[in-house]
Parts: sequence; structure tokens; C-alpha cells
Amino acid sequence: MTNQDPDIRETHDLIASDMVVGTNVYDIQGNHIGQVERLILEKRGGRVSYAVLSFGGFLGIGDDYYPLPWQKLDYDESLAGFRIDITKEQVEGAPRYARDQDFDWNAESGRRVYDYYGVRPYWV
Amino acid sequence: MTNQDPDIRETHDLIASDMVVGTNVYDIQGNHIGQVERLILEKRGGRVSYAVLSFGGFLGIGDDYYPLPWQKLDYDESLAGFRIDITKEQVEGAPRYARDQDFDWNAESGRRVYDYYGVRPYWV
Repeated sequence: MTNQDPDIRETHDLIASDMVVGTNVYDIQGNHIGQVERLILEKRGGRVSYAVLSFGGFLGIGDDYYPLPWQKLDYDESLAGFRIDITKEQVEGAPRYARDQDFDWNAESGRRVYDYYGVRPYWV
Repeated sequence: MTNQDPDIRETHDLIASDMVVGTNVYDIQGNHIGQVERLILEKRGGRVSYAVLSFGGFLGIGDDYYPLPWQKLDYDESLAGFRIDITKEQVEGAPRYARDQDFDWNAESGRRVYDYYGVRPYWV
């Protein structure tokens, strides 16, 4: 990635939160499909439990928010965004919540998110 | 914390990134001393490696950025912000970088940050 800002944003194996939140998301073919709305962090351990994505306007599937395991997001420097291996069909069946509502953030619903994407939950 | 926004921000042991970045930081007596500028995350593991704080204008110590181990930040619902156990003297001697420059984010400089605050680095 070309670092246009003199401030540190992305180095080695680290990435700044402001390079993540609001950043574009692309599918495996490089099509722009959404963006990262926010991260959900463990208060104690400081781990990213979920990245919350929106796909509205891209896949024609509304304005809902989709929690994904962090491990599904792969930063692609050439795109200056995240590439994720996900199809429109997968998104259509995925755990989501309405933009103006709450997601029930608990271990069980979290497990469903991780299971849906085939990622082993880090807490089991 | 009273959740004034209908959207989920802070539940159970999780906290949303937009409740962290830009959030006020208080000392142990509850005095406002700074704010969280950004988080520095591990790209792969998705762990918060550092919270970058600014204390400018509060402790009279300029506009530098201070990386701290996430574990130093304790979210206090009554303050709707983070409380940290740190003195002005500690801040004065702490690892920092100028706002318009880069911090050298590597394992060794990270080790110095963790050592300075007496927190065991999670990567050793």
C-alpha cells in the first residue's frame, strides 16, 4: 500500500483501526461489495471478535449489518481494502442485524457466525 | 453505560471500535487527561496490539502520540470512557512519537512499550 499519510497506518503485521473501519471490501474477483462498519472487540483480551460489514447497494441485499470473523478479512494492499472469499448466496443466508437494531452479542450467536463462515471460534 | 444509540455499542464483555476510538481517557482520580486516537491491530490474529493515546492540552505535555498496551485501559461505564492508572510523571517518560511522524512498530519497540507499563507482551 502506498502510505499517503505521513502518520503510521499500516506496517509489518500491524494495521491501524482507521485503516480498517470505513474501508472497502472486495470479493475474490476484486469487485467492490461493501465496507467495514465497525469492529467488535473483547473488552478484556483486546481481540477483534467480529468485523461488522455492510453490503447495501452492492449485492442488492439491503442495508443490514453482517458480523464476520476477523479471519475472513484479508487485507490486499493493491486494493487498499479487504478481500473476502464470499458469494452473494452466502451473504443472503448469513447472520445479520438491522442497522437500527442490536445484534445479540453472546457466545451462542457468535458461535453461529463463526460456524456459518467455517471459522473455528477462538474462545472454544 | 446508558446506551443512547439504538445501535449496539457495548454489551457483555464486548465493545465496539467506535466506542473506543475518540473516547476520553481519565486518570485514576477521574480527571480527564486525554483520548484514544486509534488502535493498532495485529493483521492476522486480530488482537489489539496498542491503543494510541494523546494527552495534549491535559497534562501540559504536548501533542505526541503514546502507544499503550490495551490492558492498561479499563472501560468505566460511569465515565463513558477509559480509566488508566498512570501519572503525569509516567507519561513524561513514556514511549511516544510525534503526531506527524511514524512510530517504529516492531517487536523490540513494542517490547519497550509493554515493559514501560509493566505489562507482559502477549507475543512472548
